[in-house]
Amino acid sequence: MKKIINAPETVVNEMLDGLVAANPEKLDIIPEKRIILRKEKKAAGKVAVLTGSGSGHEPDQVFYVGKGMMDAACAGPVFAAPTADAIYEATKAVENGAGVLYMIKNYTGDRAQFGMAAEMAEMDGITVKTVISDDDVAVKDSTFTAGRRGVAGAILNYKITCAKAEKGASLDELVELSNRVNANVRSMGFGLTSCVTPAKGGPTFEIGGDEMEIGVGLHGEPGRKRTKLMSADEIIGLLTKSVLDDLPFGAGDEVAVMVNGLGGTPLMELYIAYNKVAKMLKEAGIKVFKSYINEYCTSIDMAGCSVSVLKLDDEMKELLMYPVDIPYSIF
Amino acid sequence: MKKIINAPETVVNEMLDGLVAANPEKLDIIPEKRIILRKEKKAAGKVAVLTGSGSGHEPDQVFYVGKGMMDAACAGPVFAAPTADAIYEATKAVENGAGVLYMIKNYTGDRAQFGMAAEMAEMDGITVKTVISDDDVAVKDSTFTAGRRGVAGAILNYKITCAKAEKGASLDELVELSNRVNANVRSMGFGLTSCVTPAKGGPTFEIGGDEMEIGVGLHGEPGRKRTKLMSADEIIGLLTKSVLDDLPFGAGDEVAVMVNGLGGTPLMELYIAYNKVAKMLKEAGIKVFKSYINEYCTSIDMAGCSVSVLKLDDEMKELLMYPVDIPYSIF
Repeated sequence: MKKIINAPETVVNEMLDGLVAANPEKLDIIPEKRIILRKEKKAAGKVAVLTGSGSGHEPDQVFYVGKGMMDAACAGPVFAAPTADAIYEATKAVENGAGVLYMIKNYTGDRAQFGMAAEMAEMDGITVKTVISDDDVAVKDSTFTAGRRGVAGAILNYKITCAKAEKGASLDELVELSNRVNANVRSMGFGLTSCVTPAKGGPTFEIGGDEMEIGVGLHGEPGRKRTKLMSADEIIGLLTKSVLDDLPFGAGDEVAVMVNGLGGTPLMELYIAYNKVAKMLKEAGIKVFKSYINEYCTSIDMAGCSVSVLKLDDEMKELLMYPVDIPYSIF
Repeated sequence: MKKIINAPETVVNEMLDGLVAANPEKLDIIPEKRIILRKEKKAAGKVAVLTGSGSGHEPDQVFYVGKGMMDAACAGPVFAAPTADAIYEATKAVENGAGVLYMIKNYTGDRAQFGMAAEMAEMDGITVKTVISDDDVAVKDSTFTAGRRGVAGAILNYKITCAKAEKGASLDELVELSNRVNANVRSMGFGLTSCVTPAKGGPTFEIGGDEMEIGVGLHGEPGRKRTKLMSADEIIGLLTKSVLDDLPFGAGDEVAVMVNGLGGTPLMELYIAYNKVAKMLKEAGIKVFKSYINEYCTSIDMAGCSVSVLKLDDEMKELLMYPVDIPYSIF
């Protein structure tokens, strides 16, 4: 298998060790539970925001722990939810009186483990509320999901909701905001190749050299359909139309746009994709407030991308611009 | 070919169109010359800094145009230098009396084209000076290079030198600083797979499923040797040792470290790599001032990474922390 790893069973822990080694002044780790936390103590009265999921979607989720974003994140094994026990430990570690917000995506495993952890925390008298992103318009139910899946649009939700938490909002205010963002964001992606998990060492699904999977999931689960390869304009046109029609978005809307690489797609291609998205939004009379073109929520090394569009209100616009200091950064 | 493209011959122009579409208030384009420029007019007396190279190394180079970094960049075709004519046009566009600094890497094509452009500009009375990065310790001469190649360490040089330009340094001061950075930075990389160029549609070199190329170049050119696959600790240990021995770096040094993904390698693996680098630096008594772990200078979609280490002085440390506002960003 062509990967920079020592052994499949140690990839997550070594990644977390590298993350803390690169950010010794900013991040703490509870290694046996695979929890990454901010080192700086929270302001009194700040709601703690906690996320988590299987690993393999980096930078999601541990790379979003830091000022302006998450207070902590729980990393599961590759493509498997963290345990309720680890989430419960993380909850106790970040709580300081104002309650804890769980921000997760709609996958059966994550919902079950975070649900159990919330019950354990409530028995300790910790108030926990949970918000769930389900922004993927590709399919209604899927391999690991009842209802729609949560994908890259969730990251815009994290960004906005965590900014408001940083500013001192209450748990109920954060739940309302996050649900409002989720109600206004839509995503859809496609895959050109399968990811290769360290444990399997080969592709998680078969796909022909002349095929693509439209609406592919973040773990390689099937989407809407398998088709022959299309041009950038054709496939990005299809994704963008599916996204815009679903809300629906319309003339006069102001939006944030995300073109999210799935792990193996170069920046050049993401910008070729964005070029098409921008043209379609302009034709539809939709104004782009801010664009996000990079990797935000991946499927290890899958080639492909997703398109997310979020209809903004004034509060969301202000919160999107709130500064962050997270390990996923450039300079 | 599994890429998000419309046609091989339009990839660079469509990428640049996407780049400007995503940054309409910050970037301008001279499309027929494939030049990206800052929209904001330069402060009087500021030296203009210009870079350029073949495309396919994104974010290098056009994604580094912006406040705190480049004034403009010329994008050549994939893996081919921009023309002297385009560089000359860019030079005229950014010059406003304080001279122009060309920051390039040591490749024969880039040196020839930037050299001709400098002569053309000098005939117009524009003062041009050129600094060349050659930080790759892998090989002495190579397919496209006499002497050492310039690779990801050049990006640390760009960051530092452009910050000083932004603060109003003279052309001579910038040349001295950039040469000082280049003299103190070393890099080496390895490739697990070949990149696939849009024009060829297949791998640029053959490599077995159980092989890696140590010291691979940014265009897939050969490195030091072809070996069987190694563990992360083995290959990163080898790269880091080669880098540290070359300067040599020693106990008490304070450094910036870059682990640069070559395009197809997930963040998880870059942090597993950094975990090994950090351990070796600690054992050697070398202090890390700041680490950079992401994609900075790629070979399209190649799997693999490079390790760069820069020995810092106080001026470099201050300039590394100078804020930038560039299109290659997260939030």
